[in-house]
Amino acid sequence: MLTLYDFMGSGNGYKVRLLLAQLGLSYTLVERDILKGETRTPEFLARNPNGRIPTLQLEDGTHLAESDAILWYLAEGTKFAPATRLERAQTLQWMFFEQYSHEPYIAVARFWKHYLTRLSPLQELDLPERMAKGYAAFGVMEQHLAHRPFFVGGRYGLADIALYAYSHLAGEGGFNLDNFPQVNAWMARVAAEPGHVTMDHTN
Amino acid sequence: MLTLYDFMGSGNGYKVRLLLAQLGLSYTLVERDILKGETRTPEFLARNPNGRIPTLQLEDGTHLAESDAILWYLAEGTKFAPATRLERAQTLQWMFFEQYSHEPYIAVARFWKHYLTRLSPLQELDLPERMAKGYAAFGVMEQHLAHRPFFVGGRYGLADIALYAYSHLAGEGGFNLDNFPQVNAWMARVAAEPGHVTMDHTN
Repeated sequence: MLTLYDFMGSGNGYKVRLLLAQLGLSYTLVERDILKGETRTPEFLARNPNGRIPTLQLEDGTHLAESDAILWYLAEGTKFAPATRLERAQTLQWMFFEQYSHEPYIAVARFWKHYLTRLSPLQELDLPERMAKGYAAFGVMEQHLAHRPFFVGGRYGLADIALYAYSHLAGEGGFNLDNFPQVNAWMARVAAEPGHVTMDHTN
Repeated sequence: MLTLYDFMGSGNGYKVRLLLAQLGLSYTLVERDILKGETRTPEFLARNPNGRIPTLQLEDGTHLAESDAILWYLAEGTKFAPATRLERAQTLQWMFFEQYSHEPYIAVARFWKHYLTRLSPLQELDLPERMAKGYAAFGVMEQHLAHRPFFVGGRYGLADIALYAYSHLAGEGGFNLDNFPQVNAWMARVAAEPGHVTMDHTN
């Protein structure tokens, strides 16, 4: 049985829970509250020395960290994995875009606004730039989606799962996506995929 | 012929140049000075809408962005690629670690200190946290390398290339690695690999 260490409010965790549901895989969910430091305990650091959820424990006891690496592992050999060398690279391109140019702005702004009661002086000063870079990421996505239903290869796959998670939570970070009709239409297509589950779903 | 759009001072670009050299692949290098905004021109944005180097143009005209996705593409079918499903996931785990928990602190601190003549108030306030998180990333690496010669599968591969690039430039960011003997020994092993080239090398 797979064991997923996760925090239900995490979009990075939701990526993994969504793919697990669409693959029909059952798993044991172990919640770790990142707001209470539960991913920085010695017990958890022995599982993932970087102290982050999601972390997936495989049947043999091996632990995998980094949401997008976990997605890649789970999808291998299934219809959710990219099919060609070029599509594998393009899928990874969008997954690295998500972790470098999207999540640090959209997810972090959402975390600050949604979970913190007060921002630090650094966060206060940083927030406008985070918002601007988040909107820039949505601009790149909007342009790419203008003539494509999904991010890679014309079909739903790992890049869509990776980008959907925090895109669909952007409102909680104060982002207004009215000017991104392609992104909105794509999010509706993702949510209409067979086996789609919302963020509070576990199985 | 492959065409690499790159900035010679970029560690992300160096990853790609290093693997190209070790694969014995020749390519046309087109330099774009990120300090002069040369990756934000309409011509360049048509190649990579996210406006970043390295960007690799394939023989058929397709452009690939994101250094670690380019590494994955180039390595497929070679000894530098991970060999099993678990090693593929572990390699990606370390590549996503690099882009999320290493580069934004170590490379960004180096960029600020090495290339900027003056820091903004936000950068001044942010720098101590960037340094602390950079040292935390080296701590995770130090622990992992305590009983391993390379990051995944006991042999040199993509995770090492991805992590070496900015690790070996950390001094330019003001990092002192005296307390990270395993990281230093690993960097020496990487630099001793057959076909290794330094950052100023092109072929």
